[in-house]
Amino acid sequence: MGDFTSQAKCATIKETPYLDRGALEQIIPDSERLIFENIDPKYLSDKLGRLRGTPQAVALPMSAAEVSALLRYAYDNQIPITPRGAGTNLVGSTVPIRGGLILDLSRMNRILELDEQTMTITVEPGILLQELQSFVESQGLFYPPDPGEKASTLGGNISTNAGGMRAVKYGVTRDYVRGLEVVLADGTVLTVGGKNVKDATGLSLKNLFIGAEGTLAVITKCILRLIPKPEASVSVLVPYPDLKTGIGSVLSILRADANPTAVEFMERKVVALGETFLGIQYPRPDAGSYILLTFDGHSSEVEANVERVRSLALTQGALDYIVLSDSQQAADIWKVRGALVNAVEAVSEQEPVDIVVPISKTEEYIRYINGLEQSSGMQMVSFGHAGDGNVHLCVVRGDRTQEAWNLQLRANMEQVYAMAYQMGGVTSGEHGIGLTKRHYFFRETAPANISVMNHIKDALDPRHILNDQKTYIMGDK
Amino acid sequence: MGDFTSQAKCATIKETPYLDRGALEQIIPDSERLIFENIDPKYLSDKLGRLRGTPQAVALPMSAAEVSALLRYAYDNQIPITPRGAGTNLVGSTVPIRGGLILDLSRMNRILELDEQTMTITVEPGILLQELQSFVESQGLFYPPDPGEKASTLGGNISTNAGGMRAVKYGVTRDYVRGLEVVLADGTVLTVGGKNVKDATGLSLKNLFIGAEGTLAVITKCILRLIPKPEASVSVLVPYPDLKTGIGSVLSILRADANPTAVEFMERKVVALGETFLGIQYPRPDAGSYILLTFDGHSSEVEANVERVRSLALTQGALDYIVLSDSQQAADIWKVRGALVNAVEAVSEQEPVDIVVPISKTEEYIRYINGLEQSSGMQMVSFGHAGDGNVHLCVVRGDRTQEAWNLQLRANMEQVYAMAYQMGGVTSGEHGIGLTKRHYFFRETAPANISVMNHIKDALDPRHILNDQKTYIMGDK
Repeated sequence: MGDFTSQAKCATIKETPYLDRGALEQIIPDSERLIFENIDPKYLSDKLGRLRGTPQAVALPMSAAEVSALLRYAYDNQIPITPRGAGTNLVGSTVPIRGGLILDLSRMNRILELDEQTMTITVEPGILLQELQSFVESQGLFYPPDPGEKASTLGGNISTNAGGMRAVKYGVTRDYVRGLEVVLADGTVLTVGGKNVKDATGLSLKNLFIGAEGTLAVITKCILRLIPKPEASVSVLVPYPDLKTGIGSVLSILRADANPTAVEFMERKVVALGETFLGIQYPRPDAGSYILLTFDGHSSEVEANVERVRSLALTQGALDYIVLSDSQQAADIWKVRGALVNAVEAVSEQEPVDIVVPISKTEEYIRYINGLEQSSGMQMVSFGHAGDGNVHLCVVRGDRTQEAWNLQLRANMEQVYAMAYQMGGVTSGEHGIGLTKRHYFFRETAPANISVMNHIKDALDPRHILNDQKTYIMGDK
Repeated sequence: MGDFTSQAKCATIKETPYLDRGALEQIIPDSERLIFENIDPKYLSDKLGRLRGTPQAVALPMSAAEVSALLRYAYDNQIPITPRGAGTNLVGSTVPIRGGLILDLSRMNRILELDEQTMTITVEPGILLQELQSFVESQGLFYPPDPGEKASTLGGNISTNAGGMRAVKYGVTRDYVRGLEVVLADGTVLTVGGKNVKDATGLSLKNLFIGAEGTLAVITKCILRLIPKPEASVSVLVPYPDLKTGIGSVLSILRADANPTAVEFMERKVVALGETFLGIQYPRPDAGSYILLTFDGHSSEVEANVERVRSLALTQGALDYIVLSDSQQAADIWKVRGALVNAVEAVSEQEPVDIVVPISKTEEYIRYINGLEQSSGMQMVSFGHAGDGNVHLCVVRGDRTQEAWNLQLRANMEQVYAMAYQMGGVTSGEHGIGLTKRHYFFRETAPANISVMNHIKDALDPRHILNDQKTYIMGDK
């Protein structure tokens, strides 16, 4: 009815912009940080490497001032910009589909300040999650967000609002970003948020940049909230006869006020792949599924919570309740969980799915997937974050020809996403939309929502230089 | 340098728009819900009642469809809209300074659904916080945000991202909003978020509407996250010889991994006003200040945390450590804390301040305020949320003439806000900017940030009908 039911006008980008080498060299004086020839293939794609773009150059800035100057130049000349960190995304977010300039932020990877009094750490966006985590833990502090990919950068984590294993208790990346320094499309440097715990001063621009997949601004500094490092952490492996029984008991576990940190589920068949891949054995191979729990906090509290869930699980059909008190065994069990995608990939190409449904629908959704698997003959192994309804599927290509795979995959995915939305779910819990989920995202999202996102994009990046064609800008969907 | 260092163009609003009574009657057929004459004075202002506007009409819609039709009409005719709930704000947010139409959402106060499986509750925006809290607690569930004003509406809480006492452990309102239905300026109804725990699908519009003080959209439905009701809750009153010692020990308490729910501080002199106001006595009247703590969770965990802080507080200068195991005593102590603003107001007009500073600066900031109090001769009683750096000051008028009060208040406030920003703080932690904090907010906020906010306002409400002149729209600052 209103203005927001029509689409925002979108600027068109020159398909082959002219990149002035001299202008870039003025901004980045160090030739080793400016690449025009023999561009490393990693810059053409994402972690999966299936989609490829053709960048004209790669710049590795080392300061917000350099990022600002590069963007100002790109803005003036309408050069497409693809910002990237470690490029570990799975949805084509870093594919330079419009060519132009790659902004590789991996050289901006310093820890700028640990402020123990405010329990914040200020870092550059290129720092790897694993480096941040191990540094803060060595200081008796803790950065709770824990996506599976530890070699990802914080800038990337923030840009997709990465979730991960510990979201049940601790929330997601958004909940740990206190402040950001970003550079807008036109080169303006903006600081949003800071070290304050509360903030009720106007629009929350910080929250707009978080999860924006680099389409509104380039992050150049991150102020992150830390918490005291939990005294103890105990994991429990709970085997169930089948997936239904396992998933079915998760809701009671969440309602039991036992405050689990992580609640993961895995079908036995995907665990078997992981076992083979890593040469590690899970107990109770007779199980049909496993729930993997972690509890952390003070030792006494952890112990009490572990016991709270024990009787609950056993009365709800668990085959066993295996407290992983041996830290090596716990690490091994988690290692398999962490390697599941790679384990599947080792056997066959696979399409990763990152759907979220309301937690009350997880079991019904997976039951639907199992039915579709049977009726379509296409293997879909499932695992994921049972505690928050974030279902990861690996849809397995097997020995299909490219053409058969493309056709059958698309047909199945149409149903997989449609059913998720029918249950109140959405396309992505933590991977983002990027290029590869655009079709499903656009098809299932209300036009008014897309329109409002486009209006904001137009307002902040009127020439559409920043990671354009990613996410919400409807074009050739 | 760039486009965002210049200001967005702002639409101008007709000062005296023409409101077509017949058109409004077509939308709201119930005459009792459409007021043109004898408008209740409460509609002219906020809780303090000092600033007043002159609305032409008040509409009390009962559905999103009615809100949509009203906004569409207002949009087409460029009628200023002032949305309001219970009008308990302290910063002029509900003052209809441009005239036009008041949208009173208090009739939209139903609980639409309690979904125990996803632990969410769906409510209309006009429900009062106290009604929501008591309903969910009767169901064994818990809505953690707890601003002092319990007769505020959820729509208002969301629009200012209300904080409150329990923010130390549980976070603020933003952290409990899973989804919203809103109506944009042009009447478009938008659903953002839902019952999903995670969401990485495009821009987080939900987070943009939270804390926007009704300047981007009108909230018509709220999906809120609940948690299991904590088994036990224990408060502890810790008297200190002076404010410095009290505030000084807060950082250690926060670092002690004892997970307090609330960490409040109060100067003895303001407590004395509260005691007189309510006829309740605090223990240890010889104290110079108090820290009031709450711990909640499982009984054993609460007990352990209470003890963890005891020795810490006593070694850091506390005069005593009074566990309020008597629930009546605990309620009384908290009642005084909750009544402090009213207690000050009972003695004299006062100017409420809601500044936030990084928690490491709280003590230094209050020391500065105490110095200013002495040098200026203007009483400034302080209390607030020590656990998150949110300092509430009541600046007391006393027997000053209006002219002297205006002049001296302004002079002092310039310093009070300037010092907060110098320490990395911001204007408001939870009250919002509204009309009365605009001057300080604009003076201290980077022009680029204001510009980006204005660009977003222009994009979403191009005719500036929604709560215009509030917050970030720079006009006659």
